[in-house]
Amino acid sequence: MKVRSKVNLSKSNILPYNIRMYFIRNNKFKVIDKNDVDKFISLIGKENTLSLLCDSSLNSKDLDIYNFDYLKHKKGKSNTVLFPNTTEQISEIMKYCYSENIAVCPQSGNTGLVAGSQPIFDEIVINMSKMNKIINFDTVSNVLHTQAGVILENIHQYLNDINFCAPIDIASKGSCMIGGNISTHAGGINVVKYGPLRNNIKGIKAVLATGEIIDCMNPLPKNNTGYDLKHLFIGSEGTLGIVSECLIQCYPKVDNSELSLLRFSSFKSVVDFYVEFKSKFPDQIKAIEFFDHEAMRLNQEKMNLKSPFSDTINNTDYFLLIEVENKGDYPTIKNELEKFISEIDYLDDAIISQNSSQYMEIWSMREMILEANVKAGPTLIYDVSLDLRLHAELINKVRDLCKSMEFTVVGFGHIGDYNLHINIVDEKNKEDTKIVSFKEKLNKEIFEYLKANKGSISAEHGIGTDKAQYLPYSQSYENLEIMKHMKLVLDRKQILNPYKLVYQDKI
Amino acid sequence: MKVRSKVNLSKSNILPYNIRMYFIRNNKFKVIDKNDVDKFISLIGKENTLSLLCDSSLNSKDLDIYNFDYLKHKKGKSNTVLFPNTTEQISEIMKYCYSENIAVCPQSGNTGLVAGSQPIFDEIVINMSKMNKIINFDTVSNVLHTQAGVILENIHQYLNDINFCAPIDIASKGSCMIGGNISTHAGGINVVKYGPLRNNIKGIKAVLATGEIIDCMNPLPKNNTGYDLKHLFIGSEGTLGIVSECLIQCYPKVDNSELSLLRFSSFKSVVDFYVEFKSKFPDQIKAIEFFDHEAMRLNQEKMNLKSPFSDTINNTDYFLLIEVENKGDYPTIKNELEKFISEIDYLDDAIISQNSSQYMEIWSMREMILEANVKAGPTLIYDVSLDLRLHAELINKVRDLCKSMEFTVVGFGHIGDYNLHINIVDEKNKEDTKIVSFKEKLNKEIFEYLKANKGSISAEHGIGTDKAQYLPYSQSYENLEIMKHMKLVLDRKQILNPYKLVYQDKI
Repeated sequence: MKVRSKVNLSKSNILPYNIRMYFIRNNKFKVIDKNDVDKFISLIGKENTLSLLCDSSLNSKDLDIYNFDYLKHKKGKSNTVLFPNTTEQISEIMKYCYSENIAVCPQSGNTGLVAGSQPIFDEIVINMSKMNKIINFDTVSNVLHTQAGVILENIHQYLNDINFCAPIDIASKGSCMIGGNISTHAGGINVVKYGPLRNNIKGIKAVLATGEIIDCMNPLPKNNTGYDLKHLFIGSEGTLGIVSECLIQCYPKVDNSELSLLRFSSFKSVVDFYVEFKSKFPDQIKAIEFFDHEAMRLNQEKMNLKSPFSDTINNTDYFLLIEVENKGDYPTIKNELEKFISEIDYLDDAIISQNSSQYMEIWSMREMILEANVKAGPTLIYDVSLDLRLHAELINKVRDLCKSMEFTVVGFGHIGDYNLHINIVDEKNKEDTKIVSFKEKLNKEIFEYLKANKGSISAEHGIGTDKAQYLPYSQSYENLEIMKHMKLVLDRKQILNPYKLVYQDKI
Repeated sequence: MKVRSKVNLSKSNILPYNIRMYFIRNNKFKVIDKNDVDKFISLIGKENTLSLLCDSSLNSKDLDIYNFDYLKHKKGKSNTVLFPNTTEQISEIMKYCYSENIAVCPQSGNTGLVAGSQPIFDEIVINMSKMNKIINFDTVSNVLHTQAGVILENIHQYLNDINFCAPIDIASKGSCMIGGNISTHAGGINVVKYGPLRNNIKGIKAVLATGEIIDCMNPLPKNNTGYDLKHLFIGSEGTLGIVSECLIQCYPKVDNSELSLLRFSSFKSVVDFYVEFKSKFPDQIKAIEFFDHEAMRLNQEKMNLKSPFSDTINNTDYFLLIEVENKGDYPTIKNELEKFISEIDYLDDAIISQNSSQYMEIWSMREMILEANVKAGPTLIYDVSLDLRLHAELINKVRDLCKSMEFTVVGFGHIGDYNLHINIVDEKNKEDTKIVSFKEKLNKEIFEYLKANKGSISAEHGIGTDKAQYLPYSQSYENLEIMKHMKLVLDRKQILNPYKLVYQDKI
């Protein structure tokens, strides 16, 4: 198996969209007491209950990892974390919470970047880490049945051992869980190959706020028997139900891939190449990743990564990392790739990986960008998607906006999915004060541009608490109204992951 | 372009799941009068309004094609058919209907097999045939923007002219419309190649019962901004909204395909082959279609199709039609296919198509089955999906059930999608009395088997009026309750396509 680099991210320098939270506690939610915890213990056992209310040896710091968001900017005040082992246990917990008006924060790996999986106030946490069983792999349909708390990397290892692979691969795979991936509709580098995760989730079991269990665990490719309910839970960030089990479409493992790094001197050439490349290798594309000259410069300066191209990097350079693979036992497509690249006359330069260390070096160019950025200074991250033809225009617009502030603007992303990441880095200051003071203006300008051009303010990171106020930039009033109605239909008391996404008492 | 055979179906011998309708008119719905029609005329013009209430030259027979279901077993009594040209016109019509409690039957090609697109009583019909404009094809994303009333074959032709193809191909393509395909989540022969239609619908514009327009016309592959509303409308059979425009992911056309017909002497061998075939050609499979010895016999007897295999057909013969393709400019994969097939030792016999007439002959074997069946006698059709390993068991079970009745049981289907069609044919009687009297027992036995084995009572045909009463065989009480809630959230008065799917005043 070809191995890519491990990302070792220093999180403290990544800044959230919102520093402060603009919520007040919904006082309809019960403040839980020892009796409630005793009830939880009766339902799932003492060994699965972590609560300051019933264990005097604990102090609030012991619950910090469940209360902090991944970026460590926001912290809830939950005093109780429950670790159910089965769907039925989650159901029993939720029945009790619904009857008692107890607010609940479902939590998987808690690796999200939009503060969506930590409590905001004193919601109890239902942590999924003990629902970590891989249940079955069907050798005919290639569908994997797991509990929702299985860590993504464990799924990868399990599948690798039987010569299969998962349809999803993201940077946080070492700690994120498949149920969280589903609830947030996580993206990553495999979307261009296998389609969005939604297309590969063949079944879901979910527990509603009321404790009712919704069983959509029917992996049949065709099933036209009413509304397809599982799509409600995919991407709803734990606000409509807690995903407890799932069926994942998996694929035969392929190792005969070819990797290339390309340099273009205009973004128009990148788009032209994208169209030709997709047309030439419609089924063989494994990755199309993009980064600009600032990404390359910071990679060189902060990570000691050497550009494989001999010339100096220019301000108009754009880089594409492309990987193709031929499945089955066919000969590799190296010759086709070389021939194809050699015939592109608007291409400035290209290298094709010749061995596994070069493979890793090239991938590092793409995967170390965020780490290089946060090493350079406090970093604002944007995760947008829009018409491919407009990516450079948006990067340049943001660069113009940031010019007077002397911020560095880095453009990169999963360009095969039209997913553009823009990082704004203050290389001149260790403190984040200056960049934070500019954040509101940036949010507004970027999101207005996206709205005008039918882009999305969140390609893959989701909404959580951080972007909830910005949702109208990507969804119409009518659409948001339907979402709110759906939330109320499934969770009338709004106890599931409150204050997030389309919560209705936000101020 | 390789051409497959045209199906020329005699419909009268295909029997519905339910002969009679068990509905009573909901008297909350207004009986429309001339004033209402005048209002419609003011909204969309006289040239787009067909009504017995305002045109004395019409008689009720002129509206028959809108009132009959495709199989001509059920007939509504609508006196008014509207032909809007734009989303906004639909919206205006629906606003008026909602305010006046006028029930509406949305109608596309009206080619469905479950009586889902004709009026049941006097609902007005909103016929989509004038919303037949192809709006745009994006050469970067390969996404096609059309109005919902475009006939599927017109989409095929449009795309073929620019060297692309659509992700959906079904037998009724000459008259079905893309909006109807989306609303019913139509299946067909391309699912094994491009995935279900749902995965290829990148955007939807829909009009709610209230007249509100829901715009999900954002074709971005990644867009995590709240619940993905477009999935509500896909497969909801016009009960949640009227799809008025859509964005369809299209694909470069491929013509270098290889077709083979295979014969196995046990169904276990079919399953083993399926697994090996999928593993060997993971991205190149264009079709995996299945039929049994009875299908072959009736093809020979009724359609004069000659089996390409020399031996007599045995009762344990199972046939697979497989097609593979290599995209791009690569050499064909004929050699790989031949080598692969020659190494399968449990295969009885195989032929590989050598020219376009043989190509058509082999496809006819699969595509003429229904026509051959209805020529042989009154035919009950089942459209189920279940674990591939159980297909022969179910066919045999039905054969046992039908033995004493002397009915012929034909098994065939889109086996690559686990979609099994079972046709029960009464070859001994021209009248359908005998087979109809057996229908209830068959429904019960087949649906009970599916329920016990996590199958689906409707793989691709949908529910409509015909299967609404059987939904609990494939959906739990909890799931059906959510569907009903969702219906009421979006259409509190239940005026959109009433009496179908999850309508709540059924008796």
